[in-house]
Amino acid sequence: MSEQTITVTLATEKKPKPDPSKLEFGKVFTDHMFMMDYTVENGWHNAQILPYQPITLDPASVIFHYGQAVFEGMKAYLTAEDKVLLFRPEKNMERLNKSNDRLCIPEIDEEFALDALKQLINVDREWIPTGEGTSLYIRPFVISTQPFLGVAASISYKFMILLSPVGSYYKEGVKPVKIFVENEYVRAVAGGTGSAKTAGNYASSLKAQQIATQKGYSQVLWLDGVEKKYIEEVGAMNVFFKIGDEVVTPVLNGSILEGVTRRSVLDLLKHWNVPVVERKISVEEIFEASKNGELKEAFGTGTAAVISPIGEFLWNETSITLNNGETGELAKKIYDTLTNIQNGREEDPFGWTVEV
Amino acid sequence: MSEQTITVTLATEKKPKPDPSKLEFGKVFTDHMFMMDYTVENGWHNAQILPYQPITLDPASVIFHYGQAVFEGMKAYLTAEDKVLLFRPEKNMERLNKSNDRLCIPEIDEEFALDALKQLINVDREWIPTGEGTSLYIRPFVISTQPFLGVAASISYKFMILLSPVGSYYKEGVKPVKIFVENEYVRAVAGGTGSAKTAGNYASSLKAQQIATQKGYSQVLWLDGVEKKYIEEVGAMNVFFKIGDEVVTPVLNGSILEGVTRRSVLDLLKHWNVPVVERKISVEEIFEASKNGELKEAFGTGTAAVISPIGEFLWNETSITLNNGETGELAKKIYDTLTNIQNGREEDPFGWTVEV
Ligand SMILES: Cc1ncc(COP(=O)(O)O)c(C=O)c1O
Ligand SMILES: Cc1ncc(COP(=O)(O)O)c(C=O)c1O
Repeated sequence: MSEQTITVTLATEKKPKPDPSKLEFGKVFTDHMFMMDYTVENGWHNAQILPYQPITLDPASVIFHYGQAVFEGMKAYLTAEDKVLLFRPEKNMERLNKSNDRLCIPEIDEEFALDALKQLINVDREWIPTGEGTSLYIRPFVISTQPFLGVAASISYKFMILLSPVGSYYKEGVKPVKIFVENEYVRAVAGGTGSAKTAGNYASSLKAQQIATQKGYSQVLWLDGVEKKYIEEVGAMNVFFKIGDEVVTPVLNGSILEGVTRRSVLDLLKHWNVPVVERKISVEEIFEASKNGELKEAFGTGTAAVISPIGEFLWNETSITLNNGETGELAKKIYDTLTNIQNGREEDPFGWTVEV
Repeated sequence: MSEQTITVTLATEKKPKPDPSKLEFGKVFTDHMFMMDYTVENGWHNAQILPYQPITLDPASVIFHYGQAVFEGMKAYLTAEDKVLLFRPEKNMERLNKSNDRLCIPEIDEEFALDALKQLINVDREWIPTGEGTSLYIRPFVISTQPFLGVAASISYKFMILLSPVGSYYKEGVKPVKIFVENEYVRAVAGGTGSAKTAGNYASSLKAQQIATQKGYSQVLWLDGVEKKYIEEVGAMNVFFKIGDEVVTPVLNGSILEGVTRRSVLDLLKHWNVPVVERKISVEEIFEASKNGELKEAFGTGTAAVISPIGEFLWNETSITLNNGETGELAKKIYDTLTNIQNGREEDPFGWTVEV
């Protein structure tokens, strides 16, 4: 399948590029997109780069009724030397196929998909923004297109890649966020789809997020769905805590998404000889550690924000403040190192970046 | 909003009707569909009945990425007197709004939606098939259409209704099915979306169903996501057991969908003075009852099959057979009564049917 060629149709009219200082997340898209189709007879075929445009589907398509869809999120960065870098993109393609497997979607050739992505980025290269903290957000996704109302895996699909220039997550510098510990709504449970990036996981999360926002909190801390006791993730990020001199993060238990940023933070900490453990962490332990003065820092990790320091947790009626609501030293160091590697400003001893 | 008028555009060409004896489920659609749009400025508006046709959406639409979508399933029946009957349709519209609420989708005027449905059915009335066990399947659904990649509730939606003539679920008469008790995969957990009809719930269920099918079982028995001990649903149906002289069904616990058929079976049994209880039921209890000769019958309930008798359960390595793999007396009686009421062949003492 890697032998497949990609048909390229260039846009005759180009859209105006947005003001890089006013970029928002995920609202503006580049001139082109990648698309390929799947049918049982032909497998994945009809790979094309074509002008960004609406898609037309039968209203009975599986995606509209049963949400059989998965996606990925990654970024391309423009270096000072005008090189375009991706960050561990093979990890995203691997995870895409894990998600595909969980939702009974046919596997995609990972090398071919990465190749298609690189070609697409080259076509829309001038869309990669240049300001500090900006990047080109990349959204590969698969949707189920068979017009059939039976609850069964679709027999046809579309795999697409969209590109969106995005601004710095931190317009006024890295700033710690306030987190609401969610006791009622559950994001995922072992045996469910939490360890995959399925569309439905995000629809389910909207309600809790809406309530947290109304209360003035920026994200939700998700607890496990069984005992509502152990910490899983924060918003759409993985989460780390520094307790005493040790860094801890919830162990992958089947309901947590394995973040590429999480993996990289673990690798980085080991490289720095900072003690780091993956294990079960109860929310009670975190509140106890705060009371005892042992809780030094907490931060979320994910492609969008890279590192998102946490300044406060509210759990039932009790709130705790971390590091006086300021960004912790460790969070800052990880953020700087990762973004420097991603933007080619610092040597990449891990071989994480891939040039387009 | 009920004052809203519906613009009707009739199809200039009509599709050929399918052979009623060869009808499958959810593959053929009528000549028209209903559609209305939601925007923050205008609320639900632009209500139209129009020729069945593909819809065109931006590839960044929320539905494709975060699966923010809900649906309903109901049927219209043609009586011997040529009347068209709906079965408790107000319950479906009520549940649609419960699902909407869970997924942060704006409420729909239930009366208006029912009215729109009736108008649509009238336009496509000649599509209602007439053979024994046939009906017109009705699929109301809502999809999120804002082109935005942030994880947030969409600010625009489409509410649509599709109609599909469907054949008898039981081509060779009502036949008991073999059920696989699922120990690994979980359909839903309290705090999740199990009690709503969200698109994502069905995508998550595909994997377990696929495995059960491969093993020669026709549906999955879902256990609770916390202890994997208590019975929740069977496939996309609610489930009932007759133990001794008593009928039991899992109590609504926040992760079970409240089926309209389930509600009607409960009402019917009470009307008949058959002892019936909603409570927690462990799979162990069912296997014990079978050993003791107390387990008389089991059956699923849902709009598609109405009543689906169960002939066998496999749990780990042990299987039990019910009523010699034959349809039980009670299941048969409920099936006959419900389908007779639905098709206007028997008096409807509950006022369940609504004429179009
Ligand atoms: C639920 C969830 N957890 C964690 C992450 C972080 O993963 P990554 O670091 O690969 O972006 C994401 C975002 O992709 C996510 O959606
Ligand atoms: C998960 C699930 N449970 C139960 C049911 C049965 O509900 P109803 O009787 O309203 O069709 C359905 C089907 O609609 C379903 O999808």
